[in-house]
Amino acid sequence: MKGNIFYAQSGGVTPVINATAAGVIDAYNKNKKSFGKLYVGKNGILGALNEELIDISKEDKTQLALLKQTPGGAFGSCRLKLSDFKKSKKDFERLYEVFKKHNIRYFFYNGGGDSQDTTNKVSKFFKERNYSIVCIGLPKTIDNDLPVTDNCPGFGSVAKYIATSTLEASLDVKSMCETSTKVFVLEVMGRHAGWLAASAGVIKEKAGDAPHLILFPEIQFNQGSFLKKVKETTMKYGYCVVVASEGIKGSKNKFLSDSGLKDSFGHAQLGGVAPVLSSIITSKLKYKVHWAVSDYLQRAARHVASAVDVEQAYALGLESIKVAKLENNIMLTIKSTTIKQKYKWSISSTSLDNVANVEKMLPKNFIKSNGFEITRSCKEYISNLIQGEDYPSYDNGFPQYAKLECKTIKKKLPAYKS
Amino acid sequence: MKGNIFYAQSGGVTPVINATAAGVIDAYNKNKKSFGKLYVGKNGILGALNEELIDISKEDKTQLALLKQTPGGAFGSCRLKLSDFKKSKKDFERLYEVFKKHNIRYFFYNGGGDSQDTTNKVSKFFKERNYSIVCIGLPKTIDNDLPVTDNCPGFGSVAKYIATSTLEASLDVKSMCETSTKVFVLEVMGRHAGWLAASAGVIKEKAGDAPHLILFPEIQFNQGSFLKKVKETTMKYGYCVVVASEGIKGSKNKFLSDSGLKDSFGHAQLGGVAPVLSSIITSKLKYKVHWAVSDYLQRAARHVASAVDVEQAYALGLESIKVAKLENNIMLTIKSTTIKQKYKWSISSTSLDNVANVEKMLPKNFIKSNGFEITRSCKEYISNLIQGEDYPSYDNGFPQYAKLECKTIKKKLPAYKS
Repeated sequence: MKGNIFYAQSGGVTPVINATAAGVIDAYNKNKKSFGKLYVGKNGILGALNEELIDISKEDKTQLALLKQTPGGAFGSCRLKLSDFKKSKKDFERLYEVFKKHNIRYFFYNGGGDSQDTTNKVSKFFKERNYSIVCIGLPKTIDNDLPVTDNCPGFGSVAKYIATSTLEASLDVKSMCETSTKVFVLEVMGRHAGWLAASAGVIKEKAGDAPHLILFPEIQFNQGSFLKKVKETTMKYGYCVVVASEGIKGSKNKFLSDSGLKDSFGHAQLGGVAPVLSSIITSKLKYKVHWAVSDYLQRAARHVASAVDVEQAYALGLESIKVAKLENNIMLTIKSTTIKQKYKWSISSTSLDNVANVEKMLPKNFIKSNGFEITRSCKEYISNLIQGEDYPSYDNGFPQYAKLECKTIKKKLPAYKS
Repeated sequence: MKGNIFYAQSGGVTPVINATAAGVIDAYNKNKKSFGKLYVGKNGILGALNEELIDISKEDKTQLALLKQTPGGAFGSCRLKLSDFKKSKKDFERLYEVFKKHNIRYFFYNGGGDSQDTTNKVSKFFKERNYSIVCIGLPKTIDNDLPVTDNCPGFGSVAKYIATSTLEASLDVKSMCETSTKVFVLEVMGRHAGWLAASAGVIKEKAGDAPHLILFPEIQFNQGSFLKKVKETTMKYGYCVVVASEGIKGSKNKFLSDSGLKDSFGHAQLGGVAPVLSSIITSKLKYKVHWAVSDYLQRAARHVASAVDVEQAYALGLESIKVAKLENNIMLTIKSTTIKQKYKWSISSTSLDNVANVEKMLPKNFIKSNGFEITRSCKEYISNLIQGEDYPSYDNGFPQYAKLECKTIKKKLPAYKS
C-alpha cells in the first residue's frame, strides 16, 4: 500500500505560502501513481494532533485553482510548540499514532525557523521508532531569517509591498510638506532581523530620495543621532521619511515599542513603534508627523506580489513531491547566482540539522556605516527578489481569493488532549 | 493676446489627482490655439501668491507621460486658508496682481471642500474687481464628502485599496486564529464622514465574512455594544475583523483617538484609534489583537487604483479645458446612472455657490440598523466606483512614478509676505 502524504502550513502566514501548497497539490496530482492520498493538516501540526486531515479531492476545483493567488494560510496555520522533546514525547507519540493509523509516510512541513525545528524533531523521533517516513521542510517566512537558503519565500512579496508603499507615501508627504506634514514614519515587521525595513531602501536612487532613515533591529536606537538626522533631512529636503522595524531596541536592550505607552484607563498600549517615534519627533522637533503601521496588511498583500517570489514558492511545492522518493530529513532551499547581472535561481536542499535554531540577520555589509541606509549589495540582493508583478485575478473590484471548505476525513482515533 | 491658464492642486492629495492634472495638460496641448500658456502653481495657491508658476513645457516628456499613473500631488499641494475674505482681502489683492501681471484668465483649482470655497471666493473677488477670469473647481477628495457630485475622484481608488487590504488581512487572521491573534483592527481615514470605512464592507458576501464591525464617525461609539459584538463574532467564527474610521467619537462628542494616550515621557500620543480600540479589546476580552493604521499608505496607493476612478479623474481634467470657453464659477461634477444594472457616468457641473461649506455624510440608508455594517445600497454605490484595475508600469520591481522638475518661470513681481 502506497504511503500517504501529510502537508501543513505553520507559523506566521505569508502572501505566497498558498503558492507552495498549490505546488505540492499540482505535483501530487501529476504523480498520483507513486503516492497514496494527500492530506493537509487543518491548522498546521494541530491537524495531525487532532486528526483533522483535510481531503483535498473534496474541494471545489474552481476555488482550488485560485489557491496560488491567495494570501494567508488557506488550510489554517498555527503557532504551537510541541511538548519538550527532551522531557516529554507525548505529542510525538500522538503523531506516531495518527500517522500510523493513516499510513502517512511523507511529512511536508511549510514554515519558518521554529517549524523547521519541529520537522527535525519529528524526523528524529520517527527514526527512533523505526517508523519509515520522509520528512521535508518547506521554507517560508516574510522575515527572511532562515539560514542556508539564499532567501525565503514570502519575503520578496512583502519587500515589494514595502518598497511600493514607502515610495507612494513619500510622494504624498513630499507634496504637502510646505504647509502640512513634514515627517512620515512607517512601521514594518521584523522583530529581530531588519530585512523588511531594508527593503524600503531599494527605491532610493539618489541622495535626498526617501526613505531617509531606516531603523534596523541590528542597530541600537540612539535618540540623539536619530533626531539629528531627521532634523537635517527635513531642513535640507523639506520632508523626511522614516521606515522602522517593529523590533528596534534602545538602551538596556529594551524594545522601543515597550516604552510604557498607556491609555487613559492606564492599560499598557499594545506594540507600535511608529507612534513612539512620532511622539519623540513631535515633542523634540515640533514637526507635524504622520505615521502608519502596516502590520498584517504587509504580510497579506498578495495584490502586489513579486513574480519571482510566487515562482519560487510554487517551485518549492513542486520539488517536495520530486525529492520525496530521493531524500529525507532535509529543508528545501533556494540557491541563487547572478550571471552577467542576471539573477538565476534553482531549488536545492540542506539537512534539517543545519537549519534549526539559527536566525539570519542582515549582514554587516548590507547596512551603511551611518546605520540608517542600505548598501549597494543589499539593494541588489533585495531588488532581485521583487522583480515582476504577479497580479491576482479580480472580480467585482477586489481580488478573487480561494474559499476552501477544508473538509476533514473521518477520524479513526479517540480525541487527543495535549 | 490669449489668456493664460493657472492650474493648481490643493488640500490632501489622492492616488489620482495627478490624473486630473494629466487631463488638463493633454486637453490643453490639443487646444493650444485657443489659450495662452498653461502654468501650474507650485504647492497649490501658494504658487500664485509666491509667483511660483511652473512651466509645463519645460518638463521631460517621458516623466510627464507618467503623471497619470503617479500618486501624490506632483506639483505640490497645500493646506492654506487665504486671508479672511470679509476682514482682509490682502491675499486676494496679491492674486489679482500676479494674475494680471501674467495675464492669467483661467483659474482651475483642484481640491476638496475648502478648496472649492477658495475658488468661489477668488471668483467673486475678481468679479468685484472687474477682472475677467474663468474660475473652475475640479473636485478631488478621498473622503468623498463633496456635495452635488455623485462621487469624488480619489475615493474609488482608496476604497479599492481598503476593500483589498481588509480582505487580505482577514485571510491572515483567519488562518492563525486557532492559536494566535483573534481580532484585527484596521484604522482608515475619515475624520467626519464614514465613506472610506464603509468601503471595507463591499467584500462581505455572507454572514460571518469580514469585516465583522465597521465603525463610522456618523454613529456614536458605544464601548458596551462594541465589545459585545466583538465577543459574539469571535465566539462564533473564531476571529473578528474591525474597520474603524479615524474620526469615531465616544460620549461628549470626543474623538476616541484623543483618549489620553501618553508615552513614558508623558507626551500625548499622536492619533491612532486602532491602538485605543485594541487596548479596550485586550483589557476587557483578553483576546490577542493585531492592529494596522493605513494612514498615507491608503491615500497614496496608486498601485491598486480603480480604473473607473482614474478615468473619471482624467475626464475631469479634459473637461475643464472644454468648458473654459463656455462656463464660469462652477465646480465640475460626476453624474451617474445605473441602467440595467450597468453603471454609467458623465461629467456635469454645478455653481460653486452650491458646494461651499457642505459636507456629505454617509446617508442613513447606507448604514444597517445595527450600526456596524453597510446596506445593499451602499455596497452597490461603492462597488461601482472600484471596478477595474489601472496598474502603473513597473521598473526594477517598483512602480514608475513621474519625477518632475517643477521649474518655475521668471518672477516679475517683488516677493510677497502674507
